[in-house]
Amino acid sequence: MKTVLLTGFEPFNGAAINPAWEAVRALEGWSGEDFRVEVRQLPCVFVDANRALADMVDALHPDVVIAVGQAGGRAEISVERVAINVDDASILDNAGRQPVDQAIAEEGPAAYFTNLPIKAMVAAMREAGLRAGVSQTAGTFVCNHVFYGLMRHVAASGRNVKAGFIHVPYLPEQAEARDDAPPSMALEAIVSSIRIAVETAVRVERDVAQAGGATH
Amino acid sequence: MKTVLLTGFEPFNGAAINPAWEAVRALEGWSGEDFRVEVRQLPCVFVDANRALADMVDALHPDVVIAVGQAGGRAEISVERVAINVDDASILDNAGRQPVDQAIAEEGPAAYFTNLPIKAMVAAMREAGLRAGVSQTAGTFVCNHVFYGLMRHVAASGRNVKAGFIHVPYLPEQAEARDDAPPSMALEAIVSSIRIAVETAVRVERDVAQAGGATH
Amino acid sequence: MKTVLLTGFEPFNGAAINPAWEAVRALEGWSGEDFRVEVRQLPCVFVDANRALADMVDALHPDVVIAVGQAGGRAEISVERVAINVDDASILDNAGRQPVDQAIAEEGPAAYFTNLPIKAMVAAMREAGLRAGVSQTAGTFVCNHVFYGLMRHVAASGRNVKAGFIHVPYLPEQAEARDDAPPSMALEAIVSSIRIAVETAVRVERDVAQAGGATH
Amino acid sequence: MKTVLLTGFEPFNGAAINPAWEAVRALEGWSGEDFRVEVRQLPCVFVDANRALADMVDALHPDVVIAVGQAGGRAEISVERVAINVDDASILDNAGRQPVDQAIAEEGPAAYFTNLPIKAMVAAMREAGLRAGVSQTAGTFVCNHVFYGLMRHVAASGRNVKAGFIHVPYLPEQAEARDDAPPSMALEAIVSSIRIAVETAVRVERDVAQAGGATH
Repeated sequence: MKTVLLTGFEPFNGAAINPAWEAVRALEGWSGEDFRVEVRQLPCVFVDANRALADMVDALHPDVVIAVGQAGGRAEISVERVAINVDDASILDNAGRQPVDQAIAEEGPAAYFTNLPIKAMVAAMREAGLRAGVSQTAGTFVCNHVFYGLMRHVAASGRNVKAGFIHVPYLPEQAEARDDAPPSMALEAIVSSIRIAVETAVRVERDVAQAGGATH
Repeated sequence: MKTVLLTGFEPFNGAAINPAWEAVRALEGWSGEDFRVEVRQLPCVFVDANRALADMVDALHPDVVIAVGQAGGRAEISVERVAINVDDASILDNAGRQPVDQAIAEEGPAAYFTNLPIKAMVAAMREAGLRAGVSQTAGTFVCNHVFYGLMRHVAASGRNVKAGFIHVPYLPEQAEARDDAPPSMALEAIVSSIRIAVETAVRVERDVAQAGGATH
Repeated sequence: MKTVLLTGFEPFNGAAINPAWEAVRALEGWSGEDFRVEVRQLPCVFVDANRALADMVDALHPDVVIAVGQAGGRAEISVERVAINVDDASILDNAGRQPVDQAIAEEGPAAYFTNLPIKAMVAAMREAGLRAGVSQTAGTFVCNHVFYGLMRHVAASGRNVKAGFIHVPYLPEQAEARDDAPPSMALEAIVSSIRIAVETAVRVERDVAQAGGATH
Repeated sequence: MKTVLLTGFEPFNGAAINPAWEAVRALEGWSGEDFRVEVRQLPCVFVDANRALADMVDALHPDVVIAVGQAGGRAEISVERVAINVDDASILDNAGRQPVDQAIAEEGPAAYFTNLPIKAMVAAMREAGLRAGVSQTAGTFVCNHVFYGLMRHVAASGRNVKAGFIHVPYLPEQAEARDDAPPSMALEAIVSSIRIAVETAVRVERDVAQAGGATH
């Protein structure tokens, strides 16, 4: 029986909800034939979020970790490819911090690639009629910070853990309240995408080779 | 007297022109008080482009190298922050190659950060009324490939070379010929941006600390 | 037994296919309990397209007419609300014409609203998990030209005909061949949307009142 | 001496500022050789805004009226071509009203085209290095409502008044506070655009014929 840790962020930047947490919490108690899911919330705070996630990983010994965050303005589920070693915040985090061009880990590598089967995950989501794609950047805010910290913690642990990050669009109710009409996705579709992500991550040992890049 | 090497790609994906090359060639023979510019074209071909650029660097011993490429669909001058160690082509290069999820350098680091003063460059462009921003991804096609190869070659050389990559929008004539109405920028504005990039790169030793990140 | 006329444009602007025609032709011979569908292709040519469509309407006496066109760059099925009385072409039509700021009908009204139940159509598409929305502009190219001509012809006929226009995204194969990575939609999803549009148009006499506007 | 009436909306949807009003107020007291400018604020309220604007027009007898509104998410100055006869609010106005699919004027035409020289205005803005374009839709919220009401009032007056509507992007401080990173424009650039719009509207009697349409 494998253990899957799913995390979602608390709301940030003054918002009342975070679709990442809404989707993740909907999967509390979910289990499959050969896996069970543990659900946790992360604070949207630099450093603190990484400490919290490291503690969760150390306590639960998960086989798969998928952190989920909101990407307001994106139209599809974004399965992230790479985390980079820099914090550069355009807005404040929930503790009022706004680091600019600071390394996440002074001695760390410039980046970590996820070891999730991201092409297979995207393919499975698309087969289910969901809008999804590989993303080449998780930004430079708390999401990338957590993604980098997660990959670094897993690498340091020496354990065989698949880990990565997924960005999700606004919910329709968030989009409708804004005057610039950003794209959105229904909560059920986001939840379905996370389910497929988990099932694919548990099942697929070796990712498929199919194009998922960007020209720029 | 410093030497600045500027490169622009040949047209690709069946296009007749490439705004990167049009802008770079317009600066042929340009020099400042303390620098002169060398202008070269690169083939839009994986591996070959990197060999060509490495040869140019070895021959010219430049103090600054800025490679310029087209980012069709982007609205502003994008000063790239980071190159990642992967080729994942969604279209064919000019030699008909389409690598998928292959490392650029098997033993290379996951990524290289540019050492250009990208925040100062963006700030100077904006002061001049030009639309510009820091970009967190150069994609996974030949542009990122060249950017990664450039940073790796420079790092291996042990010389003090500032190097990086700038993506530019379509020209108006390219945008007008398309039915999906992508954003564009006049050639003069692109050329002005590259000029400012060069002058800033020559002049600024230590980049300014101002936010230029993305939440996702 | 009601008759539904579905039209799709031929490819234009040098393209090899048009998703509108691909979707419409897939419904050839389709019929429901109380309707049958007639499928026709329209030339992407100002004036000629309107003459062809008027002839089709006069010959078939349809109860519902839905013209379908490609909207490259849009991410969702766009059910158009209004056609305006102007041609202003940013690209050439298939006969090499490029009218600028010319009235479609010198004595015609400034605009026609569709009389299709567009809110019910969008709601039904969304319930089926398809990305759809009401659009407030069909542009000023051949699509708007045909939409305006259709509404004018139907109004002049004095018959009770529901008529309107739907814009559809690129197909994935179109998007993948472009270097600016526009959004796209699978052909099956586009076909499903057109099916739902037809069924809703045949069934719903009075449109539902639910917000579908834009702040700008 | 001609009189130009410039209006800008108060902030709406919970925002603290509105770039339209900030730009318009900056031009208070401005005059040229052959014109002087009157500046007024409009409430972001259906019906009330139109009554207020009609009163201003009746009191000032302007030769040119340009109403300015915010278009959050747009990247350029949008000179609007057409106002349509429908209110369809996706958010509440400042009086808590949210009309859905209601005619602005029961007996009014489906649409009014602006009689401003919009192509000349856009050309002049672009020559000045400003990002601008013709827009084919002013939406279905209070902006379109005011634009439609303005054109209807002017048409009913029988006087020779040039009138129209301009949408402007977010200010940088608005964009920076949001987590979906919408485009923005500096206040000085927006003010410059409005200046050029006024000067062109006062000077140009017959608009230039140059393409400014959209394929969809």
